[in-house]
Amino acid sequence: MTYSENISTLQPSATMAVSSLAKRLAAEGRDIINLSAGEPDFDTPDWIAEAGIRAIREGRTRYTPASGLPEVRAAAAQDALTRAHAGWELDAGNVVVSAGAKQSLFNACFALFGPGDDVLVAAPYWTSYPEIVGLARARPVVVSGAEAEDFRLTPAELDAARTPATRGLILCSPSNPTGTVYSLEELAAVAGWARRHDVWLISDEIYRRICFLPDRPIAPGILDLAPSEVGPFVLVDGVSKTFAMTGWRIGYAISPADLAAKAGALQSQITSNPSTPAQLAALAALTEREQAEATVHNMVAAFHRRRDLVVRLLEEKLPGYSFLRPEGAFYLFLRVDSDYGADISGSSEWCSRVLEEKGVALVPGSAFGDDRYARLSYAASDREIEEAIDRLAS
Amino acid sequence: MTYSENISTLQPSATMAVSSLAKRLAAEGRDIINLSAGEPDFDTPDWIAEAGIRAIREGRTRYTPASGLPEVRAAAAQDALTRAHAGWELDAGNVVVSAGAKQSLFNACFALFGPGDDVLVAAPYWTSYPEIVGLARARPVVVSGAEAEDFRLTPAELDAARTPATRGLILCSPSNPTGTVYSLEELAAVAGWARRHDVWLISDEIYRRICFLPDRPIAPGILDLAPSEVGPFVLVDGVSKTFAMTGWRIGYAISPADLAAKAGALQSQITSNPSTPAQLAALAALTEREQAEATVHNMVAAFHRRRDLVVRLLEEKLPGYSFLRPEGAFYLFLRVDSDYGADISGSSEWCSRVLEEKGVALVPGSAFGDDRYARLSYAASDREIEEAIDRLAS
Repeated sequence: MTYSENISTLQPSATMAVSSLAKRLAAEGRDIINLSAGEPDFDTPDWIAEAGIRAIREGRTRYTPASGLPEVRAAAAQDALTRAHAGWELDAGNVVVSAGAKQSLFNACFALFGPGDDVLVAAPYWTSYPEIVGLARARPVVVSGAEAEDFRLTPAELDAARTPATRGLILCSPSNPTGTVYSLEELAAVAGWARRHDVWLISDEIYRRICFLPDRPIAPGILDLAPSEVGPFVLVDGVSKTFAMTGWRIGYAISPADLAAKAGALQSQITSNPSTPAQLAALAALTEREQAEATVHNMVAAFHRRRDLVVRLLEEKLPGYSFLRPEGAFYLFLRVDSDYGADISGSSEWCSRVLEEKGVALVPGSAFGDDRYARLSYAASDREIEEAIDRLAS
Repeated sequence: MTYSENISTLQPSATMAVSSLAKRLAAEGRDIINLSAGEPDFDTPDWIAEAGIRAIREGRTRYTPASGLPEVRAAAAQDALTRAHAGWELDAGNVVVSAGAKQSLFNACFALFGPGDDVLVAAPYWTSYPEIVGLARARPVVVSGAEAEDFRLTPAELDAARTPATRGLILCSPSNPTGTVYSLEELAAVAGWARRHDVWLISDEIYRRICFLPDRPIAPGILDLAPSEVGPFVLVDGVSKTFAMTGWRIGYAISPADLAAKAGALQSQITSNPSTPAQLAALAALTEREQAEATVHNMVAAFHRRRDLVVRLLEEKLPGYSFLRPEGAFYLFLRVDSDYGADISGSSEWCSRVLEEKGVALVPGSAFGDDRYARLSYAASDREIEEAIDRLAS
């Protein structure tokens, strides 16, 4: 069989593959501690689940407009505005609701970039960014800040990577896989650079609400900047991580309305609307503010506590390994290349060995553009985290 | 703003656009009869809805493998096998579950076709086929049978359209928009042609269960042929039309396992898994056979009765208009070009006038590649059908 050159460089999602393998081994009876997951280990809160159930009972199971129900689009805009800098004007026309934030990224990249375009991808990067840029037939150009600065990018580093073909920059803060959070000043510097060079800033803020900075319970995002500080932009967000709704598949993009219309047209030819009951569950999450804040507060407190736990245990029990201290999301990027040698050549082999011999599933750093590391997800119980680190230390 | 050449020819889904406009006018208080819908007017059956509700209550709201839950993939394969010709061997590995049959088509076309490839599209075609082929950067080549034969294609017509660049053929039976059903012999002839020329046959059988042929309650599909009669193929199906589940967004493709793996990898980078509760609702539809058969039987009986009603009313009240007598699906293709003249230049204008002046929403035939026609959906109540035809006759 011969396949299209459209998918000649395509790799399946590395994180989903590891996670599926770990689940399969566990289902087969193997004693696996799965720290590879990209999703909260909490259930979708009852009050959101009930909104989905209510939608089904009310027969809200038909097509909606391809870009999502107007009220969901408006709620996403409104939610963003509650935290935005003065001067932003956003409404339903700026929002496209998609089958997950991944589709929001695909829509943006496929509509904006193409052959001859370079798109800068801040590394370590979420595994799907370069693949999505490749599906748009543009070239992903990996750019990384200094390791000592937790890989945060500066305008100088972006300048060094920029060419006349540079048309976009994909940034993720809080970062998957490192947990790094850009300060407002750092973000302003990067956004200013993009604006000056007319580069589309694709800001993946899906982990924004999971932030442990004492003065910043919500990570800085591009809407915290004045509109004049931001050039062409796509803000990618969704309910998956904030509200433990990964399987429902609801993400959204906020962008200039003209791009939103294009993205909506594209989506109308690829998937049509995201699942209708899921949209209505997401609508509850975005509009029932008091419950939402309480839910997020409790979940983030749990992740914060676990972040402290995993950091303490690693320092105690694995003193030979360095790592980036996470300030958000629920991942820790662990440097494991001190184990490489004759029989372990890289992160993929390291993770395979750890899965095979210790029954702990982590994701190889190679999936995120840095083969020296492995990603540990602490979206797991305290007991699992403790046991996993004991196994790694043994 | 400049957009990618990826979407240079992209048009938003014409059918969704008309349907959304009609819904919006109705919501604004206009007296609109909407015969533009591409979905059953029935609610999702309770027993399926309850399966979705149960899934939510049980916390089945997390990621699944990108290609769908193994049990849903297996159920789709099993469901297909219950009706298949002897010799077919299909299992979960042949199935990818997607966010609607539209995504199944996109996955197949994007993975199989690319620049330099021609893909034959049987006309009148479902509006999204040429767009999806275009998104894959292949060239859609419209090919049509004789109007007197309800546009059914024969090998001779396919031969005339074929070039060395022809790599695929997209066929829909029962047809949206005409309701035409290929007989087993006609389908065998087309499949044989595709096999002989090593052309991928993409057989959209989403309306297969909605068939009014007295001897064929289920329309012939490619799995009714012997495996030796079928070359490279993708069978596109889903629960949307058969079980009134359009908004849930669950479709699937059945294909050689190698292509299914590629399509799954593609999907893992565009949307991840289809909505998890929706998958579990679909699982009930595909596995609870007795209830499924009863449900489908009742719904198809209603469509059959309405087909008879709309045919009778059109013959009585609009004798000046010809149409194709539908044998399946829930559409009727009405020839309206006898009204064209100085002030109406085509189907789009005809439909606009009818919506504006008579409050009846139909979809212009231009959306389906034949500007002489308009598509009337009889997924509507008897009263609405009667009133709409009265208005058209007035």
